[in-house]
Amino acid sequence: MNAPANRQWKLTARPVGLPKRSDFAFETAPAPDLADGQILVRNHYISLDPAMRGWMNDGRSYVPPVGLGEVMRAGAVGEVVATRHAGFREGDFAVGMFGVQDYAAADGGGAQKVDPALAPLPLFISTLGMPGMTAYFGLLDIGAPQPGQTVVVSAASGAVGALVGQIARIKGARAVGLAGGAAKCRYVTEELGFDACIDYKTDDIGKGLSKHCPKGIDVYFDNVGGEILDLCLARIARKARIIICGAISQYNSTEAIVGPKNYLSLLVNNARMEGFVVFNYAARYGEGLHDMAGWLKSGQIKSREDIVDGIETFPETLLKLFSGANFGKLMIKAV
Amino acid sequence: MNAPANRQWKLTARPVGLPKRSDFAFETAPAPDLADGQILVRNHYISLDPAMRGWMNDGRSYVPPVGLGEVMRAGAVGEVVATRHAGFREGDFAVGMFGVQDYAAADGGGAQKVDPALAPLPLFISTLGMPGMTAYFGLLDIGAPQPGQTVVVSAASGAVGALVGQIARIKGARAVGLAGGAAKCRYVTEELGFDACIDYKTDDIGKGLSKHCPKGIDVYFDNVGGEILDLCLARIARKARIIICGAISQYNSTEAIVGPKNYLSLLVNNARMEGFVVFNYAARYGEGLHDMAGWLKSGQIKSREDIVDGIETFPETLLKLFSGANFGKLMIKAV
Repeated sequence: MNAPANRQWKLTARPVGLPKRSDFAFETAPAPDLADGQILVRNHYISLDPAMRGWMNDGRSYVPPVGLGEVMRAGAVGEVVATRHAGFREGDFAVGMFGVQDYAAADGGGAQKVDPALAPLPLFISTLGMPGMTAYFGLLDIGAPQPGQTVVVSAASGAVGALVGQIARIKGARAVGLAGGAAKCRYVTEELGFDACIDYKTDDIGKGLSKHCPKGIDVYFDNVGGEILDLCLARIARKARIIICGAISQYNSTEAIVGPKNYLSLLVNNARMEGFVVFNYAARYGEGLHDMAGWLKSGQIKSREDIVDGIETFPETLLKLFSGANFGKLMIKAV
Repeated sequence: MNAPANRQWKLTARPVGLPKRSDFAFETAPAPDLADGQILVRNHYISLDPAMRGWMNDGRSYVPPVGLGEVMRAGAVGEVVATRHAGFREGDFAVGMFGVQDYAAADGGGAQKVDPALAPLPLFISTLGMPGMTAYFGLLDIGAPQPGQTVVVSAASGAVGALVGQIARIKGARAVGLAGGAAKCRYVTEELGFDACIDYKTDDIGKGLSKHCPKGIDVYFDNVGGEILDLCLARIARKARIIICGAISQYNSTEAIVGPKNYLSLLVNNARMEGFVVFNYAARYGEGLHDMAGWLKSGQIKSREDIVDGIETFPETLLKLFSGANFGKLMIKAV
């Protein structure tokens, strides 16, 4: 066959502050030829995640930065349209780090087959994908909430936060969320069943936390960093666990990162702050997927996706994450 | 008998910045009458510890603040000179939070008998006392260094730091210290057997850490906070453990506490920062004392005390801790 045209977003400059369209190039190339053992995937949904901002920076991290001139790294779910791998057939669906492009070549290790009969495709990059595993292992493995304890999560209407609170409730803990705006807060309490949600745009956050966490915060799942992390640190209970999953308030800062000035609260409360990268749990994803799929089926977990049409919108769509304009798991529909 | 005169240092003002003589009153009162179940202790050695600075502040912490007008809280070791408690005889020795004064009345729960034949009295408030237990449980329970791993400790010639490095070595780990001045650094490497010591007053601390921790820092036992904490965070290994034991660089700050701006290093390294208050390990002190006494006896652990004569010197002697002028465990000889 003639190689189909492959539109690709390449990183061409290291962003300073918020990423701009000019930090990327939107190019078209023929879809890649396959080597033995590879598959060609037509991306259907491309995941946009806060972590992508970190991957654009130079410097040592848990994965190498995206090189200048390389296709922007992103998780995606798509259809196998050509295969030189015995384990995949045309028409199969797979997830992997397929990048912000129409077509990706992947080897067997870089693609996981998924069953589209099990759930709608977008779920494989949300509740049954990286955000789901992040919420599951971060909360349960590091946070380990006990029945009756209070779990606070920021970005509570977002891909990870929404799941954290719902899993906390399933485990018998109380869930208190932080989200921006009345609509999101209503969604968090009424649809997702959190015990409370604080509107960080209009409420006094400290007062809200004190009111809804009268015995202190046992687990804080931090997606944002900055002031909210400090306000939570000031209200932790003895032996509290703070999961550092992200710091979206800091990712685009052009000044020095602001450290948590209340960190000595860890000392007086014998408490713990622990960083978390979901990729280190790859060997245990099966366990997480099993539970998450069960909870989805039983209706104990709800999932909401914010799907934007068209790969050409990538730079602007990505910014929705940093302004808080997305409502649910943000992704691009690529086909 | 006539009650002996009891000189006492009382906290009379909440210090702003470094404590001053005028924040205390030096008064003389008769030694207290004993109630049933109490003992009267003549303090011999009074422990001066960085934590005392925190106890002078108002606000929620792991122990209530010292009230204005109350005798300044301090650990001490002394002789039982009168007793209305069946478990203590005159001439016994005991440790407890006996305060900065000549005589203290204590009940059975507030005093632990010690055997002066086992070790010189000062050791019961250093290696066999709170600093010893702090080093032991903080390092082993939270830090859990494995053979061949690298343990970094600040204030390495101090009461706690010196023990942390020596215990790390006993457990087969490498020990890298930070101390102020050539004499202290020499002591840390030559007397205590650390693998290296960085002079924070004259060396480039970051370069020193990189040089002596080529595979990164597995355990950082933090007694100081501030810049050194950030420099260590920037150099942690995967799954590193940071023990927040103190933050002496911040205790007298009149500005906001400086938080660790490199805390996101916890995220990318799946690492952990955990606060530590030794009092929570009270039920396990026996275990720590057994090991520490054994290591002292076998010569695997050395102890150094900085003993200042005279309870009347208290406010000025205390300041040695914050200028780094003490060399070894600081205490006042009260008799």
